[in-house]
Amino acid sequence: MTLKYYHAEPAANSLKSMICLHEKGLDFESNYVNLHTFEQHSDWFVKLNPEGQVPVLVHDGTIITHTTVINEYLEDVFPDVPLRPADPAGKARMRVWNKFVDEQVMNHVSMHGWHRMVGVIARGIDTGAFEKLMERIPLPDQRKKWMNARSGFSEADLQNATDKIIYACKKVDDHLADNTWLAGEMFTSADANFYSMCGMMVERMFTELEVAKNYPRLVDWRERMTARPGVQAALKMPDHTNPALRTWTGEVL
Amino acid sequence: MTLKYYHAEPAANSLKSMICLHEKGLDFESNYVNLHTFEQHSDWFVKLNPEGQVPVLVHDGTIITHTTVINEYLEDVFPDVPLRPADPAGKARMRVWNKFVDEQVMNHVSMHGWHRMVGVIARGIDTGAFEKLMERIPLPDQRKKWMNARSGFSEADLQNATDKIIYACKKVDDHLADNTWLAGEMFTSADANFYSMCGMMVERMFTELEVAKNYPRLVDWRERMTARPGVQAALKMPDHTNPALRTWTGEVL
Repeated sequence: MTLKYYHAEPAANSLKSMICLHEKGLDFESNYVNLHTFEQHSDWFVKLNPEGQVPVLVHDGTIITHTTVINEYLEDVFPDVPLRPADPAGKARMRVWNKFVDEQVMNHVSMHGWHRMVGVIARGIDTGAFEKLMERIPLPDQRKKWMNARSGFSEADLQNATDKIIYACKKVDDHLADNTWLAGEMFTSADANFYSMCGMMVERMFTELEVAKNYPRLVDWRERMTARPGVQAALKMPDHTNPALRTWTGEVL
Repeated sequence: MTLKYYHAEPAANSLKSMICLHEKGLDFESNYVNLHTFEQHSDWFVKLNPEGQVPVLVHDGTIITHTTVINEYLEDVFPDVPLRPADPAGKARMRVWNKFVDEQVMNHVSMHGWHRMVGVIARGIDTGAFEKLMERIPLPDQRKKWMNARSGFSEADLQNATDKIIYACKKVDDHLADNTWLAGEMFTSADANFYSMCGMMVERMFTELEVAKNYPRLVDWRERMTARPGVQAALKMPDHTNPALRTWTGEVL
Protein backbone atom coordinates (compact mmCIF):
# COMPACT_ATOMS: atom_id res chain seq x y z
CA MET A 1 0.00 0.00 0.00
CA THR A 2 1.27 3.46 -0.86
CA LEU A 3 -0.25 6.67 0.41
CA LYS A 4 1.11 9.93 -0.99
CA TYR A 5 0.04 13.41 0.08
CA TYR A 6 0.86 16.40 -2.13
CA HIS A 7 0.57 19.56 -0.08
CA ALA A 8 1.83 23.07 0.62
CA GLU A 9 2.46 24.74 4.00
CA PRO A 10 0.70 23.46 7.15
CA ALA A 11 -2.31 25.79 7.01
CA ALA A 12 -5.75 25.92 5.39
CA ASN A 13 -6.50 23.07 2.94
CA SER A 14 -3.07 21.46 3.12
CA LEU A 15 -3.24 21.28 6.92
CA LYS A 16 -6.82 20.03 7.02
CA SER A 17 -6.16 16.55 5.63
CA MET A 18 -2.63 16.45 7.09
CA ILE A 19 -4.16 16.61 10.57
CA CYS A 20 -6.38 13.62 9.76
CA LEU A 21 -3.47 11.63 8.29
CA HIS A 22 -1.42 12.20 11.46
CA GLU A 23 -4.35 11.74 13.87
CA LYS A 24 -5.06 8.38 12.24
CA GLY A 25 -1.39 7.43 12.57
CA LEU A 26 -1.11 6.67 8.85
CA ASP A 27 2.26 6.22 7.24
CA PHE A 28 2.29 8.53 4.20
CA GLU A 29 4.80 9.97 1.77
CA SER A 30 4.84 13.76 2.06
CA ASN A 31 5.31 15.63 -1.23
CA TYR A 32 5.77 19.36 -0.86
CA VAL A 33 4.27 21.44 -3.67
CA ASN A 34 5.87 24.88 -3.80
CA LEU A 35 3.08 27.44 -4.25
CA HIS A 36 5.73 30.18 -4.08
CA THR A 37 7.05 29.02 -7.47
CA PHE A 38 3.52 28.20 -8.71
CA GLU A 39 4.28 24.49 -8.86
CA GLN A 40 0.54 23.80 -8.52
CA HIS A 41 0.13 25.07 -12.11
CA SER A 42 3.08 23.11 -13.51
CA ASP A 43 2.54 20.40 -16.09
CA TRP A 44 3.35 17.51 -13.76
CA PHE A 45 0.96 18.74 -11.07
CA VAL A 46 -1.92 19.59 -13.41
CA LYS A 47 -1.60 16.04 -14.75
CA LEU A 48 -2.19 14.84 -11.19
CA ASN A 49 -5.00 17.32 -10.45
CA PRO A 50 -6.41 19.09 -13.53
CA GLU A 51 -7.84 21.79 -11.24
CA GLY A 52 -4.29 22.81 -10.23
CA GLN A 53 -5.13 22.87 -6.53
CA VAL A 54 -3.41 21.41 -3.47
CA PRO A 55 -3.70 19.11 -1.64
CA VAL A 56 -4.02 15.78 -3.44
CA LEU A 57 -4.07 12.30 -1.92
CA VAL A 58 -2.87 9.36 -4.01
CA HIS A 59 -3.72 5.97 -2.56
CA ASP A 60 -2.41 3.02 -4.57
CA GLY A 61 -2.82 5.09 -7.72
CA THR A 62 -6.30 6.41 -6.89
CA ILE A 63 -6.31 10.21 -6.93
CA ILE A 64 -8.55 11.96 -4.42
CA THR A 65 -9.00 15.74 -4.31
CA HIS A 66 -10.96 18.24 -2.14
CA THR A 67 -10.09 17.98 1.53
CA THR A 68 -13.57 17.25 2.89
CA VAL A 69 -13.81 14.39 0.38
CA ILE A 70 -10.25 13.24 1.19
CA ASN A 71 -11.13 13.12 4.89
CA GLU A 72 -14.26 11.03 4.24
CA TYR A 73 -12.15 8.77 2.01
CA LEU A 74 -9.62 8.24 4.81
CA GLU A 75 -12.52 7.15 7.08
CA ASP A 76 -13.88 4.78 4.43
CA VAL A 77 -10.50 3.13 3.78
CA PHE A 78 -8.75 3.35 7.16
CA PRO A 79 -11.43 3.06 9.85
CA ASP A 80 -9.07 1.79 12.60
CA VAL A 81 -8.61 5.18 14.29
CA PRO A 82 -11.97 6.78 13.52
CA LEU A 83 -12.38 10.54 13.09
CA ARG A 84 -16.02 10.10 12.02
CA PRO A 85 -18.80 8.97 14.39
CA ALA A 86 -19.99 5.40 13.94
CA ASP A 87 -23.69 6.26 14.20
CA PRO A 88 -25.54 7.87 11.27
CA ALA A 89 -26.80 10.82 13.33
CA GLY A 90 -23.23 11.57 14.47
CA LYS A 91 -22.00 11.34 10.87
CA ALA A 92 -24.73 13.84 9.92
CA ARG A 93 -23.63 16.27 12.67
CA MET A 94 -20.04 16.06 11.44
CA ARG A 95 -21.14 16.64 7.84
CA VAL A 96 -23.32 19.64 8.66
CA TRP A 97 -20.32 21.28 10.35
CA ASN A 98 -18.04 20.40 7.45
CA LYS A 99 -20.56 21.94 5.04
CA PHE A 100 -20.75 25.05 7.21
CA VAL A 101 -16.96 25.49 7.21
CA ASP A 102 -16.64 24.68 3.49
CA GLU A 103 -19.44 27.01 2.42
CA GLN A 104 -19.66 29.74 5.07
CA VAL A 105 -16.18 30.11 6.57
CA MET A 106 -13.32 28.97 4.37
CA ASN A 107 -13.69 31.50 1.54
CA HIS A 108 -14.11 34.41 3.90
CA VAL A 109 -10.94 33.84 5.93
CA SER A 110 -9.20 32.99 2.67
CA MET A 111 -10.16 36.37 1.14
CA HIS A 112 -8.45 38.23 4.00
CA GLY A 113 -5.41 35.96 3.73
CA TRP A 114 -5.18 36.51 -0.01
CA HIS A 115 -5.70 40.24 0.41
CA ARG A 116 -2.78 40.53 2.83
CA MET A 117 -0.39 37.87 1.56
CA VAL A 118 -1.10 36.78 -2.00
CA GLY A 119 -1.81 40.41 -2.93
CA VAL A 120 1.76 41.34 -1.96
CA ILE A 121 3.12 38.44 -4.01
CA ALA A 122 0.86 39.21 -6.99
CA ARG A 123 1.81 42.89 -7.05
CA GLY A 124 5.50 41.89 -7.01
CA ILE A 125 5.13 40.25 -10.43
CA ASP A 126 5.35 42.46 -13.52
CA THR A 127 2.30 42.64 -15.78
CA GLY A 128 3.62 40.44 -18.60
CA ALA A 129 4.72 37.68 -16.25
CA PHE A 130 1.44 37.97 -14.33
CA GLU A 131 -0.61 37.50 -17.49
CA LYS A 132 1.44 34.40 -18.39
CA LEU A 133 0.81 33.10 -14.90
CA MET A 134 -2.95 33.66 -15.23
CA GLU A 135 -3.02 31.66 -18.47
CA ARG A 136 -1.67 28.63 -16.63
CA ILE A 137 -4.38 28.60 -13.91
CA PRO A 138 -6.97 25.94 -14.80
CA LEU A 139 -9.94 27.13 -12.68
CA PRO A 140 -11.57 30.41 -13.83
CA ASP A 141 -12.54 31.23 -10.21
CA GLN A 142 -8.94 30.84 -9.12
CA ARG A 143 -7.81 33.19 -11.92
CA LYS A 144 -10.36 35.76 -10.71
CA LYS A 145 -9.09 35.39 -7.14
CA TRP A 146 -5.50 36.09 -8.26
CA MET A 147 -6.61 39.15 -10.21
CA ASN A 148 -8.63 40.41 -7.26
CA ALA A 149 -5.69 39.82 -4.93
CA ARG A 150 -3.45 41.84 -7.25
CA SER A 151 -5.84 44.78 -7.53
CA GLY A 152 -6.96 44.43 -3.90
CA PHE A 153 -10.34 43.13 -2.74
CA SER A 154 -12.99 45.82 -2.21
CA GLU A 155 -13.71 47.16 1.27
CA ALA A 156 -17.31 45.95 0.94
CA ASP A 157 -16.20 42.40 0.11
CA LEU A 158 -13.69 42.39 2.97
CA GLN A 159 -16.31 43.71 5.42
CA ASN A 160 -18.80 41.05 4.29
CA ALA A 161 -16.11 38.40 4.83
CA THR A 162 -15.40 39.77 8.33
CA ASP A 163 -19.13 39.67 9.15
CA LYS A 164 -19.23 35.99 8.15
CA ILE A 165 -16.20 35.23 10.32
CA ILE A 166 -17.85 36.95 13.32
CA TYR A 167 -21.00 34.89 12.69
CA ALA A 168 -18.93 31.68 12.55
CA CYS A 169 -16.95 32.48 15.74
CA LYS A 170 -20.15 33.14 17.67
CA LYS A 171 -21.83 30.03 16.29
CA VAL A 172 -18.88 27.82 17.24
CA ASP A 173 -18.46 29.47 20.65
CA ASP A 174 -22.18 29.01 21.46
CA HIS A 175 -22.07 25.40 20.29
CA LEU A 176 -19.06 24.61 22.47
CA ALA A 177 -21.08 25.55 25.58
CA ASP A 178 -22.72 22.11 25.34
CA ASN A 179 -20.24 20.15 23.23
CA THR A 180 -16.60 19.11 23.67
CA TRP A 181 -15.96 19.02 19.93
CA LEU A 182 -17.95 20.24 16.93
CA ALA A 183 -19.79 16.98 16.24
CA GLY A 184 -20.37 16.30 19.95
CA GLU A 185 -18.22 14.24 22.32
CA MET A 186 -15.95 12.87 19.60
CA PHE A 187 -13.05 14.63 17.86
CA THR A 188 -13.80 14.49 14.11
CA SER A 189 -12.63 15.84 10.77
CA ALA A 190 -15.01 18.78 11.33
CA ASP A 191 -12.65 19.99 14.08
CA ALA A 192 -9.65 19.62 11.75
CA ASN A 193 -11.63 21.61 9.19
CA PHE A 194 -12.62 24.60 11.32
CA TYR A 195 -9.17 24.68 12.96
CA SER A 196 -7.28 24.75 9.66
CA MET A 197 -9.61 27.22 7.97
CA CYS A 198 -10.33 29.64 10.80
CA GLY A 199 -9.77 28.55 14.41
CA MET A 200 -5.97 28.39 14.45
CA MET A 201 -5.41 31.89 13.03
CA VAL A 202 -8.55 33.90 13.68
CA GLU A 203 -7.28 35.54 16.89
CA ARG A 204 -4.00 36.56 15.27
CA MET A 205 -5.47 37.68 11.92
CA PHE A 206 -8.47 39.55 13.34
CA THR A 207 -7.28 41.33 16.48
CA GLU A 208 -10.26 43.71 16.26
CA LEU A 209 -12.63 40.81 17.00
CA GLU A 210 -11.14 40.43 20.51
CA VAL A 211 -11.45 36.69 20.15
CA ALA A 212 -10.10 35.78 23.61
CA LYS A 213 -12.66 38.03 25.31
CA ASN A 214 -15.65 37.38 23.05
CA TYR A 215 -15.23 33.70 22.20
CA PRO A 216 -13.44 32.08 25.17
CA ARG A 217 -14.79 28.59 24.44
CA LEU A 218 -13.44 28.81 20.91
CA VAL A 219 -10.00 29.71 22.34
CA ASP A 220 -10.20 26.82 24.82
CA TRP A 221 -11.11 24.44 21.97
CA ARG A 222 -8.24 25.83 19.86
CA GLU A 223 -5.79 25.16 22.70
CA ARG A 224 -7.08 21.59 23.05
CA MET A 225 -6.73 21.18 19.29
CA THR A 226 -3.18 22.57 19.16
CA ALA A 227 -2.13 20.27 22.03
CA ARG A 228 -3.16 17.09 20.19
CA PRO A 229 -0.11 15.06 19.05
CA GLY A 230 -1.59 14.61 15.56
CA VAL A 231 -2.12 18.34 15.18
CA GLN A 232 1.38 19.02 16.53
CA ALA A 233 2.90 16.64 14.00
CA ALA A 234 0.90 18.26 11.18
CA LEU A 235 1.95 21.77 12.20
CA LYS A 236 5.62 20.71 12.09
CA MET A 237 5.49 20.03 8.34
CA PRO A 238 7.81 22.35 6.34
CA ASP A 239 6.99 26.04 5.95
CA HIS A 240 8.85 27.72 3.08
CA THR A 241 6.83 30.94 3.24
CA ASN A 242 8.78 34.17 3.49
CA PRO A 243 8.57 34.90 7.25
CA ALA A 244 7.30 38.43 6.50
CA LEU A 245 4.31 36.90 4.66
CA ARG A 246 3.25 34.22 7.15
CA THR A 247 -0.33 35.44 7.44
CA TRP A 248 -1.65 31.94 7.88
CA THR A 249 1.22 30.06 9.44
CA GLY A 250 3.20 32.61 11.38
CA GLU A 251 3.07 35.73 13.42
CA VAL A 252 2.10 38.22 10.75
CA LEU A 253 -1.34 39.86 10.70
CA MET B 1 -39.85 3.12 12.43
CA THR B 2 -41.20 6.52 11.37
CA LEU B 3 -39.73 8.61 8.60
CA LYS B 4 -41.16 12.10 8.10
CA TYR B 5 -40.16 14.51 5.36
CA TYR B 6 -41.02 18.20 5.68
CA HIS B 7 -40.79 19.82 2.28
CA ALA B 8 -42.09 22.43 -0.15
CA GLU B 9 -42.74 22.07 -3.91
CA PRO B 10 -40.94 19.35 -5.93
CA ALA B 11 -37.98 21.47 -7.05
CA ALA B 12 -34.56 22.48 -5.75
CA ASN B 13 -33.75 21.35 -2.19
CA SER B 14 -37.16 19.83 -1.47
CA LEU B 15 -36.97 17.70 -4.62
CA LYS B 16 -33.37 16.64 -4.06
CA SER B 17 -33.98 14.38 -1.06
CA MET B 18 -37.49 13.47 -2.22
CA ILE B 19 -35.94 11.82 -5.27
CA CYS B 20 -33.68 9.74 -3.03
CA LEU B 21 -36.56 8.76 -0.72
CA HIS B 22 -38.61 7.56 -3.70
CA GLU B 23 -35.67 5.96 -5.53
CA LYS B 24 -34.89 3.96 -2.40
CA GLY B 25 -38.55 2.90 -2.15
CA LEU B 26 -38.83 4.19 1.41
CA ASP B 27 -42.20 4.61 3.04
CA PHE B 28 -42.30 8.16 4.41
CA GLU B 29 -44.83 10.62 5.73
CA SER B 30 -44.94 13.69 3.51
CA ASN B 31 -45.46 17.00 5.35
CA TYR B 32 -45.99 19.96 3.06
CA VAL B 33 -44.53 23.25 4.36
CA ASN B 34 -46.20 26.22 2.68
CA LEU B 35 -43.45 28.68 1.71
CA HIS B 36 -46.16 30.89 0.14
CA THR B 37 -47.48 31.64 3.64
CA PHE B 38 -43.93 31.64 5.12
CA GLU B 39 -44.64 28.56 7.20
CA GLN B 40 -40.86 27.87 7.25
CA HIS B 41 -40.49 30.82 9.62
CA SER B 42 -43.42 29.85 11.85
CA ASP B 43 -42.85 28.90 15.48
CA TRP B 44 -43.59 25.20 15.01
CA PHE B 45 -41.21 24.89 12.06
CA VAL B 46 -38.35 26.88 13.60
CA LYS B 47 -38.64 24.56 16.61
CA LEU B 48 -37.99 21.68 14.19
CA ASN B 49 -35.22 23.46 12.25
CA PRO B 50 -33.84 26.59 13.93
CA GLU B 51 -32.47 27.72 10.55
CA GLY B 52 -36.04 27.98 9.17
CA GLN B 53 -35.18 26.14 6.00
CA VAL B 54 -36.86 23.25 4.16
CA PRO B 55 -36.52 20.33 3.80
CA VAL B 56 -36.14 18.44 7.08
CA LEU B 57 -36.02 14.70 7.62
CA VAL B 58 -37.18 13.27 10.95
CA HIS B 59 -36.25 9.63 11.49
CA ASP B 60 -37.54 8.15 14.76
CA GLY B 61 -37.17 11.57 16.35
CA THR B 62 -33.70 12.32 14.94
CA ILE B 63 -33.77 15.58 12.98
CA ILE B 64 -31.55 15.80 9.91
CA THR B 65 -31.18 18.97 7.82
CA HIS B 66 -29.24 19.99 4.66
CA THR B 67 -30.09 17.83 1.67
CA THR B 68 -26.59 16.55 0.89
CA VAL B 69 -26.32 15.44 4.52
CA ILE B 70 -29.85 13.98 4.45
CA ASN B 71 -28.96 11.95 1.35
CA GLU B 72 -25.79 10.57 2.98
CA TYR B 73 -27.86 9.77 6.09
CA LEU B 74 -30.37 7.82 3.99
CA GLU B 75 -27.45 5.75 2.61
CA ASP B 76 -26.04 5.14 6.10
CA VAL B 77 -29.40 4.02 7.53
CA PHE B 78 -31.14 2.40 4.54
CA PRO B 79 -28.46 0.77 2.39
CA ASP B 80 -30.77 -1.80 0.72
CA VAL B 81 -31.29 0.22 -2.47
CA PRO B 82 -27.96 2.05 -2.68
CA LEU B 83 -27.61 5.48 -4.28
CA ARG B 84 -23.97 5.72 -3.17
CA PRO B 85 -21.17 3.58 -4.60
CA ALA B 86 -19.91 0.77 -2.35
CA ASP B 87 -16.21 1.45 -3.04
CA PRO B 88 -14.41 4.40 -1.39
CA ALA B 89 -13.20 5.85 -4.71
CA GLY B 90 -16.77 5.83 -6.05
CA LYS B 91 -18.03 7.50 -2.88
CA ALA B 92 -15.34 10.17 -3.38
CA ARG B 93 -16.47 10.77 -6.99
CA MET B 94 -20.07 11.19 -5.82
CA ARG B 95 -18.99 13.57 -3.05
CA VAL B 96 -16.86 15.74 -5.33
CA TRP B 97 -19.89 16.20 -7.61
CA ASN B 98 -22.16 16.93 -4.66
CA LYS B 99 -19.67 19.54 -3.45
CA PHE B 100 -19.53 21.07 -6.92
CA VAL B 101 -23.33 21.37 -7.13
CA ASP B 102 -23.67 22.63 -3.54
CA GLU B 103 -20.90 25.22 -3.87
CA GLN B 104 -20.73 26.15 -7.56
CA VAL B 105 -24.20 25.62 -9.02
CA MET B 106 -27.04 25.76 -6.51
CA ASN B 107 -26.73 29.40 -5.43
CA HIS B 108 -26.36 30.65 -9.00
CA VAL B 109 -29.51 29.04 -10.38
CA SER B 110 -31.24 30.01 -7.16
CA MET B 111 -30.36 33.68 -7.62
CA HIS B 112 -32.09 33.75 -11.03
CA GLY B 113 -35.09 31.91 -9.60
CA TRP B 114 -35.34 34.33 -6.70
CA HIS B 115 -34.89 37.30 -9.02
CA ARG B 116 -37.79 36.22 -11.21
CA MET B 117 -40.15 34.57 -8.74
CA VAL B 118 -39.42 35.52 -5.12
CA GLY B 119 -38.79 39.12 -6.23
CA VAL B 120 -42.39 39.34 -7.52
CA ILE B 121 -43.68 37.91 -4.25
CA ALA B 122 -41.45 40.17 -2.12
CA ARG B 123 -42.49 43.32 -4.00
CA GLY B 124 -46.14 42.37 -3.49
CA ILE B 125 -45.76 42.75 0.28
CA ASP B 126 -46.04 46.28 1.76
CA THR B 127 -43.02 47.68 3.58
CA GLY B 128 -44.29 47.26 7.13
CA ALA B 129 -45.34 43.64 6.58
CA PHE B 130 -42.06 42.95 4.78
CA GLU B 131 -40.03 44.24 7.72
CA LYS B 132 -42.01 42.04 10.10
CA LEU B 133 -41.34 39.12 7.80
CA MET B 134 -37.60 39.83 7.77
CA GLU B 135 -37.51 39.83 11.58
CA ARG B 136 -38.79 36.26 11.60
CA ILE B 137 -36.07 34.86 9.30
CA PRO B 138 -33.44 33.11 11.44
CA LEU B 139 -30.49 33.07 8.98
CA PRO B 140 -28.91 36.49 8.23
CA ASP B 141 -27.94 35.31 4.72
CA GLN B 142 -31.52 34.34 4.03
CA ARG B 143 -32.72 37.78 5.17
CA LYS B 144 -30.22 39.39 2.78
CA LYS B 145 -31.45 37.19 -0.05
CA TRP B 146 -35.07 38.30 0.55
CA MET B 147 -34.03 41.95 0.61
CA ASN B 148 -32.00 41.52 -2.58
CA ALA B 149 -34.91 39.74 -4.23
CA ARG B 150 -37.21 42.63 -3.30
CA SER B 151 -34.88 45.32 -4.63
CA GLY B 152 -33.73 43.15 -7.55
CA PHE B 153 -30.32 41.49 -7.86
CA SER B 154 -27.71 43.55 -9.74
CA GLU B 155 -27.00 42.88 -13.42
CA ALA B 156 -23.37 42.10 -12.51
CA ASP B 157 -24.43 39.48 -9.94
CA LEU B 158 -26.94 37.93 -12.35
CA GLN B 159 -24.33 37.81 -15.13
CA ASN B 160 -21.79 36.20 -12.81
CA ALA B 161 -24.42 33.60 -11.88
CA THR B 162 -25.14 32.92 -15.56
CA ASP B 163 -21.41 32.47 -16.23
CA LYS B 164 -21.25 29.86 -13.45
CA ILE B 165 -24.26 28.03 -14.89
CA ILE B 166 -22.63 27.95 -18.34
CA TYR B 167 -19.45 26.58 -16.76
CA ALA B 168 -21.46 23.88 -14.95
CA CYS B 169 -23.42 22.86 -18.05
CA LYS B 170 -20.22 22.46 -20.07
CA LYS B 171 -18.49 20.56 -17.27
CA VAL B 172 -21.40 18.13 -16.90
CA ASP B 173 -21.84 17.75 -20.68
CA ASP B 174 -18.10 17.00 -21.14
CA HIS B 175 -18.15 14.54 -18.26
CA LEU B 176 -21.15 12.67 -19.69
CA ALA B 177 -19.12 11.88 -22.83
CA ASP B 178 -17.42 9.10 -20.82
CA ASN B 179 -19.87 8.49 -18.00
CA THR B 180 -23.49 7.31 -17.81
CA TRP B 181 -24.16 9.18 -14.56
CA LEU B 182 -22.20 11.83 -12.67
CA ALA B 183 -20.30 9.44 -10.38
CA GLY B 184 -19.70 6.93 -13.20
CA GLU B 185 -21.81 3.91 -14.12
CA MET B 186 -24.05 4.13 -11.07
CA PHE B 187 -26.98 6.47 -10.49
CA THR B 188 -26.26 8.33 -7.23
CA SER B 189 -27.48 11.21 -5.09
CA ALA B 190 -25.15 13.46 -7.12
CA ASP B 191 -27.51 13.01 -10.08
CA ALA B 192 -30.52 13.86 -7.89
CA ASN B 193 -28.60 16.94 -6.76
CA PHE B 194 -27.65 18.38 -10.16
CA TYR B 195 -31.09 17.52 -11.58
CA SER B 196 -32.99 19.29 -8.78
CA MET B 197 -30.71 22.32 -8.65
CA CYS B 198 -30.02 22.90 -12.34
CA GLY B 199 -30.55 20.07 -14.84
CA MET B 200 -34.34 19.86 -14.77
CA MET B 201 -34.97 23.56 -15.37
CA VAL B 202 -31.85 25.00 -17.02
CA GLU B 203 -33.14 24.70 -20.60
CA ARG B 204 -36.46 26.36 -19.73
CA MET B 205 -35.03 29.07 -17.48
CA PHE B 206 -32.04 29.98 -19.68
CA THR B 207 -33.25 29.83 -23.28
CA GLU B 208 -30.30 32.02 -24.36
CA LEU B 209 -27.88 29.22 -23.48
CA GLU B 210 -29.34 27.02 -26.28
CA VAL B 211 -28.97 24.04 -23.99
CA ALA B 212 -30.29 21.42 -26.46
CA LYS B 213 -27.75 22.48 -29.09
CA ASN B 214 -24.77 23.18 -26.84
CA TYR B 215 -25.13 20.48 -24.20
CA PRO B 216 -26.89 17.52 -25.86
CA ARG B 217 -25.47 14.95 -23.41
CA LEU B 218 -26.85 16.96 -20.51
CA VAL B 219 -30.29 16.92 -22.18
CA ASP B 220 -30.04 13.16 -22.80
CA TRP B 221 -29.09 12.65 -19.14
CA ARG B 222 -32.00 14.89 -18.03
CA GLU B 223 -34.42 12.79 -20.09
CA ARG B 224 -33.06 9.58 -18.53
CA MET B 225 -33.42 11.20 -15.11
CA THR B 226 -37.00 12.38 -15.71
CA ALA B 227 -37.99 8.90 -16.95
CA ARG B 228 -36.93 7.17 -13.72
CA PRO B 229 -39.93 5.98 -11.66
CA GLY B 230 -38.47 7.45 -8.45
CA VAL B 231 -38.01 10.84 -10.09
CA GLN B 232 -41.51 10.66 -11.59
CA ALA B 233 -42.99 9.92 -8.16
CA ALA B 234 -41.03 12.82 -6.62
CA LEU B 235 -42.14 15.26 -9.33
CA LYS B 236 -45.81 14.35 -8.66
CA MET B 237 -45.68 15.73 -5.11
CA PRO B 238 -48.05 18.73 -4.62
CA ASP B 239 -47.28 22.08 -6.22
CA HIS B 240 -49.18 24.97 -4.67
CA THR B 241 -47.21 27.68 -6.50
CA ASN B 242 -49.23 30.28 -8.38
CA PRO B 243 -49.02 28.92 -11.95
CA ALA B 244 -47.79 32.33 -13.17
CA LEU B 245 -44.79 32.06 -10.84
CA ARG B 246 -43.68 28.48 -11.55
CA THR B 247 -40.12 29.43 -12.46
CA TRP B 248 -38.74 26.24 -11.02
CA THR B 249 -41.58 23.77 -11.33
CA GLY B 250 -43.60 24.89 -14.30
CA GLU B 251 -43.53 26.49 -17.69
CA VAL B 252 -42.59 30.03 -16.68
CA LEU B 253 -39.18 31.48 -17.54
